[in-house]
This record gives sequence, C-alpha cells and structure tokens, in this order.
Amino acid sequence: MDIADWRNKIDELDRRLVELLSERARAAREIGRLKRNTSMPIYEPDRERVVLTNVQQMNRGPLPDRDLVRIYERIMDVMRNIQKDEIVVHPEPPKAVETERDSEAND
Amino acid sequence: MDIADWRNKIDELDRRLVELLSERARAAREIGRLKRNTSMPIYEPDRERVVLTNVQQMNRGPLPDRDLVRIYERIMDVMRNIQKDEIVVHPEPPKAVETERDSEAND
Repeated sequence: MDIADWRNKIDELDRRLVELLSERARAAREIGRLKRNTSMPIYEPDRERVVLTNVQQMNRGPLPDRDLVRIYERIMDVMRNIQKDEIVVHPEPPKAVETERDSEAND
Repeated sequence: MDIADWRNKIDELDRRLVELLSERARAAREIGRLKRNTSMPIYEPDRERVVLTNVQQMNRGPLPDRDLVRIYERIMDVMRNIQKDEIVVHPEPPKAVETERDSEAND
C-alpha cells in the first residue's frame, strides 16, 4: 500500500470514529438530562478516572497509553461541556415540543 | 435507561473507539515508514486541513463541528508524534526483521 492507500483507509476510519464520537455525545447528553433532575455534579472526577483506567486496559497498542489518555482528556472535556449545555442552556426542552404539536393541531 | 445504563453504553463505545484509534495509529505508523524513504515532511498542513474538512462533512451531530475539530486536533497531534517516532527513533527496522529471520533459519 502506498501513502494514498493508507490515507483512504484513514478517511474510512475517520467516518467510523465520527459516528462513535456522535453516539458517545448522545449518551453524554442523555446523562446530562438525567442529572438535571438530581443533585449530581457535571464534573465527576471518580467516573473520569474509571474511563481513563478502562481505555488503558483496553489498549493493545500501538498507541502508548499516555497518548490515548491525551486524546481521552480532550474527548471528556468536550463531553463535559455537552452535559453542561444540556443542564444550563436548555432548561425546558419539553415546552418547544408542545408548541410544535399545538401548531400542527391548528393546521 | 438510567445513568448506569448510559455509562455501560459509553464503556462499550470506548472499547470500539480505542480499537479504531489503534487502527488509525497503525496507519499513521505505516505512512511514517513510507515517508522515511522520501523527502515528504511529517507535518503536512494541507492534508490536516483535508482531514478536518472531511470529519466536519461527515458530522451529523449532536457534537458541534467546533468540538469535533477540537478532538481531531488532539488526535492529529498524537498521530504526528507517532510518525515522527517512526522516522527518527527507529531508523533501521528492516535490519531487526532480517535478524529475526536469520535466527529462525538457524533453529
């Protein structure tokens, strides 16, 4: 395989990575919604440590653990902000859904 | 689903993410090996721009593009270092392979 072939392979891997990161973001958003009704904090260092331990245990290389951790620190930082948005910025999403239904009923 | 269920789902997603990141690292290493025999630089801003454009085009949410880009900037930074290691630290890996074959031939 030449460099162009490997880059095509990377593009295909990126497609699957974007899908998994999107699924992970959806899960983080759902956890944010569940946290909205509890007193649980957004930042949970114990859970983040568990995630970092898990991914290091799953790692079979060739990425050194420290590099995987660096990538995951960024992923968790992004996901934390998504949870925060879910709790702070959109406090009443059911209202919007009701308005849409009302407008449909008037058609 | 409660928070524990969503976390189990995240753990499963992380398993697949670690596999894909490992595959991507293997591809980066192969490109590093191919670059060793050429005058191509490790840092190729044009290719990095293509990757960032690709992942934004693939993105169907809920991650905002800017967050996906932040994650990918970290991924590409790590992968760049892997290529650098491949070019600088192990300048003669074919020799090691030959030695292994030699030793097998002597068994």
